[in-house]
Amino acid sequence: MRASSETAAREGAAEDSAGVAGAREFLLRARSLSEARLDRLVPAEAEEPVAVHAAMRWSLFAGGKRLRPALVLAAGETFGAEAERLIDTACAFELVHTYSLVHDDLPAMDDDDLRRGRPTAHVRFGEATAILAGDALQTLAFQIIAEDERLDAATRVRVVSELARAAGTPGGMVAGQAQDLAAEARAGVTPGELELIHRRKTGALIRAAARCGAVIAGAPAAQVEAVSAYAAQLGLLFQITDDLLDVTATAADLGKTPGKDERARKATYPALHGVEAARGRAQAAHDEACRALDALGADSGLLRSLARLTLERRA
Amino acid sequence: MRASSETAAREGAAEDSAGVAGAREFLLRARSLSEARLDRLVPAEAEEPVAVHAAMRWSLFAGGKRLRPALVLAAGETFGAEAERLIDTACAFELVHTYSLVHDDLPAMDDDDLRRGRPTAHVRFGEATAILAGDALQTLAFQIIAEDERLDAATRVRVVSELARAAGTPGGMVAGQAQDLAAEARAGVTPGELELIHRRKTGALIRAAARCGAVIAGAPAAQVEAVSAYAAQLGLLFQITDDLLDVTATAADLGKTPGKDERARKATYPALHGVEAARGRAQAAHDEACRALDALGADSGLLRSLARLTLERRA
Repeated sequence: MRASSETAAREGAAEDSAGVAGAREFLLRARSLSEARLDRLVPAEAEEPVAVHAAMRWSLFAGGKRLRPALVLAAGETFGAEAERLIDTACAFELVHTYSLVHDDLPAMDDDDLRRGRPTAHVRFGEATAILAGDALQTLAFQIIAEDERLDAATRVRVVSELARAAGTPGGMVAGQAQDLAAEARAGVTPGELELIHRRKTGALIRAAARCGAVIAGAPAAQVEAVSAYAAQLGLLFQITDDLLDVTATAADLGKTPGKDERARKATYPALHGVEAARGRAQAAHDEACRALDALGADSGLLRSLARLTLERRA
Repeated sequence: MRASSETAAREGAAEDSAGVAGAREFLLRARSLSEARLDRLVPAEAEEPVAVHAAMRWSLFAGGKRLRPALVLAAGETFGAEAERLIDTACAFELVHTYSLVHDDLPAMDDDDLRRGRPTAHVRFGEATAILAGDALQTLAFQIIAEDERLDAATRVRVVSELARAAGTPGGMVAGQAQDLAAEARAGVTPGELELIHRRKTGALIRAAARCGAVIAGAPAAQVEAVSAYAAQLGLLFQITDDLLDVTATAADLGKTPGKDERARKATYPALHGVEAARGRAQAAHDEACRALDALGADSGLLRSLARLTLERRA
């Protein structure tokens, strides 16, 4: 008994690590696909207005993880859609994510001068150009979906609606950013408020990315909801591990200076709960994400491995 | 001969003035329809995030002319569409127009403290909230079109695409604003540049509003193009008369302080060409707008009267 359960555990661990390696490869492929397509979809720097296009590209090609495009692709491919049909929607999510970073970095908002070791858009191109670049990135996202001829019109309309609800108010990204700013101003956030802020500020878009992948693949409503529940937990997991890495990682691992959140007195999971409890919360989010996939009528291996990879990430 | 041509002229003038009165009534109806619908489409101020929703409403209900919604309705009704099917698209255009005003007024852009005699959004609610309110107004515009169940999916997709192209880069509103800022920085704009800036900054959205009205009504491509050519001239006409009113109107007529453009050394039609030549250019734009309607296979009376009203406007 003991020997065979050890064997099973060893086999399980080997499977997990093969899965995680596969997920890592998938992320690399998703990144290179999205970046190649984004390069074609965004106007060239040489095209007028030059400064705005340069700022759009500067922010877009700053070496992001491309988590949202990856989730569109992963959820879509889980239900059998080809990457061709998913890639423009994947790019649209990255455009909206990038617009929000450009605007959030502005002096009137989070006032960040550096992102991924490079000057932020307003530092490099001036505030007016950064505002306009963010505006144009958002517009382009919706244009790309509307003009994606690989999808029928009903699907495009659904994707525009999902993306808009996740990006706007009252339940989406802009609402989360507004509540985050308000919380920082009064200093003192409850764990419940922190979770709500994250659910809106980053969770909504991550969740919608996975939903849209499933929608494009023609997944039935119950499966879209299962993927949706998975992605909501994955978004939470991603945020908690982000907060943890800021406390525990080295600058070399992160490619940015750790400890920034604490110095900024930002409300984070480790700050509110302590490092150990935050690790427990991360594990719980991982487990809930996987549990949501039990209801999936499709091979959920890739999505599970992406959750595992997120739980274990070091950067 | 002489008597009858005088009679004809008198009759023509009477017809014109009846038409202009009708157009004035139409504009009032379009305004009250759009404002009532906007009030339902935009989240209530009481809903979180309260500050962002308050800023969205503050900017949206500041007493605008609602020119873009009026054009969606006028072009659509010209081809037989009912207001019910046009109103959400009309509101979406107003949302995009309003987002652009909120962002253009920011300190980093045109730095305007007052609009229509009221503090601008960033003065009233702070810069961060104004940026977010502008962002959310844009998002909501696309959401509303995508979710407009009175239109089939193909039409919604077409309207999203038209609106996005008119709002973004390289040929739309954001491009025009970027080029306007660049031109102001170097001081010294040629008449050709001024026209290109206006065509993008305000013309593109006005033109797309009329196009979308015609598209929703199911007008054939040639008619959409005719309405499009009309609206491009109408947009130009509106801009020139705006510039002229800044020079010639009284503060009481205008509801704002005239002479602002000259003090700001802004490139305008009167500044570049003189008042008389600018008046001539306005008349020419009016005439070209009407000529574009000759190709219309529908009753163009309302559109003609709107052009006449714009030519003769005093505020």
